[in-house]
Amino acid sequence: MAPIYLDNNATTRVLPQVVEAMLPYFTEQFGNASSIHAFGAEVGGALRTARQSVQALIGAEFDHEIIFTSGGTESNTTAIRSALQVQPGRSEIITSAVEHPAILSLCDWLEKHEGVTVHHIPVDTMGRLDLDAYRAALSERVAVVSLMWANNETGTVFPVDGLAELAHGVGALFHTDAVQAAGKLPIDVKTTDIDMLSLSGHKFHGPKGVGALYLRKGTRFRPLLRGGHQERGRRAGTENAPAIIGMGKAAEIAMATLAEDGARMAALRDRLEQGLVQRVGHCFVTGDPRDRLPNTATVAFEFIEGEAILLKLNQAGIAASSGSACTSGSLEPSHVLRAMDIPFTAAHGAIRFSLSHESTAEEIDRVLDVMPGIIAGLRAMSPFWSGDGAAPVAFNPDYT
Amino acid sequence: MAPIYLDNNATTRVLPQVVEAMLPYFTEQFGNASSIHAFGAEVGGALRTARQSVQALIGAEFDHEIIFTSGGTESNTTAIRSALQVQPGRSEIITSAVEHPAILSLCDWLEKHEGVTVHHIPVDTMGRLDLDAYRAALSERVAVVSLMWANNETGTVFPVDGLAELAHGVGALFHTDAVQAAGKLPIDVKTTDIDMLSLSGHKFHGPKGVGALYLRKGTRFRPLLRGGHQERGRRAGTENAPAIIGMGKAAEIAMATLAEDGARMAALRDRLEQGLVQRVGHCFVTGDPRDRLPNTATVAFEFIEGEAILLKLNQAGIAASSGSACTSGSLEPSHVLRAMDIPFTAAHGAIRFSLSHESTAEEIDRVLDVMPGIIAGLRAMSPFWSGDGAAPVAFNPDYT
Repeated sequence: MAPIYLDNNATTRVLPQVVEAMLPYFTEQFGNASSIHAFGAEVGGALRTARQSVQALIGAEFDHEIIFTSGGTESNTTAIRSALQVQPGRSEIITSAVEHPAILSLCDWLEKHEGVTVHHIPVDTMGRLDLDAYRAALSERVAVVSLMWANNETGTVFPVDGLAELAHGVGALFHTDAVQAAGKLPIDVKTTDIDMLSLSGHKFHGPKGVGALYLRKGTRFRPLLRGGHQERGRRAGTENAPAIIGMGKAAEIAMATLAEDGARMAALRDRLEQGLVQRVGHCFVTGDPRDRLPNTATVAFEFIEGEAILLKLNQAGIAASSGSACTSGSLEPSHVLRAMDIPFTAAHGAIRFSLSHESTAEEIDRVLDVMPGIIAGLRAMSPFWSGDGAAPVAFNPDYT
Repeated sequence: MAPIYLDNNATTRVLPQVVEAMLPYFTEQFGNASSIHAFGAEVGGALRTARQSVQALIGAEFDHEIIFTSGGTESNTTAIRSALQVQPGRSEIITSAVEHPAILSLCDWLEKHEGVTVHHIPVDTMGRLDLDAYRAALSERVAVVSLMWANNETGTVFPVDGLAELAHGVGALFHTDAVQAAGKLPIDVKTTDIDMLSLSGHKFHGPKGVGALYLRKGTRFRPLLRGGHQERGRRAGTENAPAIIGMGKAAEIAMATLAEDGARMAALRDRLEQGLVQRVGHCFVTGDPRDRLPNTATVAFEFIEGEAILLKLNQAGIAASSGSACTSGSLEPSHVLRAMDIPFTAAHGAIRFSLSHESTAEEIDRVLDVMPGIIAGLRAMSPFWSGDGAAPVAFNPDYT
């Protein structure tokens, strides 16, 4: 049987059309886009098209608001550091307890070594931001608010539009990590108060090693990487033309199929979640049932280890994850699920299934076929499991 | 006639074998290398091989001394910022007047905004470092010395081995930008005192968007990009597996053919230089005749504009450059040539021809055929040109 890939929040398969679009720029039109000769000039036009495709994907008003980077981590780092540098009179950051490690690790460093005060806004049991705590943290000391558009582990969507408005109320810049949202949810940044937004190509079937930072026109900015005048002096380094062109192609395809793919993925996700809850028992779906990504199902299985489930799934030819790939190998349960107050014994057994438009009903049904046996087998060996008589943890009443 | 590409210091054609090595990692083994399932695990082995190939190219002692980055600019920025962060008691940097803009722009920023003192060591008319000025600038206040291995414009090679030893004499870290040297010159970093070394894949027929930072084992370090635990926690962000694997393949090929290619390129370069000096007149070769890259010929043509020459060359199907692609479009003459005290009227007319192992004698001869006509035509229109009677500027007596 063909292996089943349900780890699309970690990375996606590059679409064949994307590879095809990239290929000429490796060996034929390989020139440096900053060169004035024909080898370089031919590349310039393709880069412009790619920039416009990414612009369209997020609804930016101008194509020069798109700065290509090496990926989500660089975009996030650039945004936060720039916001601090352009506002020397402000030294606080507001973020959430459930952000990606790229934001949280940077904030930790800034707090410990660069005199920045960081507010980590908590979330409720569904992963929704505590709006009262957010409002309370806002002040004219805040340089930047960085809150993700959609959570990489649970898929929970933050109402970034309103959050950005509140940030502007105190004169703070607003940045959002939209790495998981782009290509999965409609984004129209020009109608919002968002100043900066991070994207990653490989999360929507583009290549790895390329991302973008949306920087609203007029927003003051300091580059992270200085040197050449690439990206209008905002990101030095030879343009990664094949990857940028690939990301543009992926953006174009995502834009065209977003609504249809989203609906189909959401139906498959629901089938997976309902099937697991019905057939396995003592498990529950995490995240906000009303507002989350169409492709992400994180299910917490009580009394067992997520890593053990993953190994069994892997043996069955199914790829999933126990949270962010960026934290895999860690023995700690997910910081996202812990922030949602999900009990340790359940957070430890959480599995994230993340679908793509390539996922099929047959694949979902195979997962539903193998999971009951895997879970029962592992529970039989678990010291925490007391048999069917164990009281179900009715943690998320919307789902269990 | 097929176009002729002589701008290999700006970027190189990706070798077909490199593209072939990359391809499976876009659409087949596309998993996140940090994931524990089979889609990720298969990538891990290929990344290890790539790391060992890059290790071999620069003669590093351990493969974990190689940190993959998004390119030369990121490697340089990471090295300099790390060196400052790990030595809070030291706040000076020594660099040269002829470094790449990635170093010079960062140093300018650090000097203007972060309280760092920067020493720019001058060079002589052949681009050789002023060793007395270097020794005089060294002190226990110096956190890091950053001096390039080979100059991107003139090809002049700095004696980095000895320069690193001197830096260690005052307890400073030593970084070298080896972006132009790697793949063209033998490098055996383990026998030197170099602590950090920057590489870029696309300068030796690997892909764009990937580079490496060599970090000697035991060297204290702070990452520029924080987040996931990739690259042993030293560079966060999903591993750019296809590009890293491509860079590894390019390193393997460069390593195998370096000596042979170097000798052939040097012979072609000499043929080009001697031919231009003989046939064109009022021009001279720049750089250190005794110690420079085998592939780089920068020739200064007096009394005309380099950009005009480039446009004419482009019309003749020949791609060259007037210096760094990172500064193209600028009206200023090259900071490298100006630092060498090359007169303004000659520096403005400098053209860099940079060869690769793919360059042929036929290509060189075509350049030699078209250049006299191009130069004569432009000089006829130049207000600075007084006809054949103009005194030749015998600037570099080794060459004119």
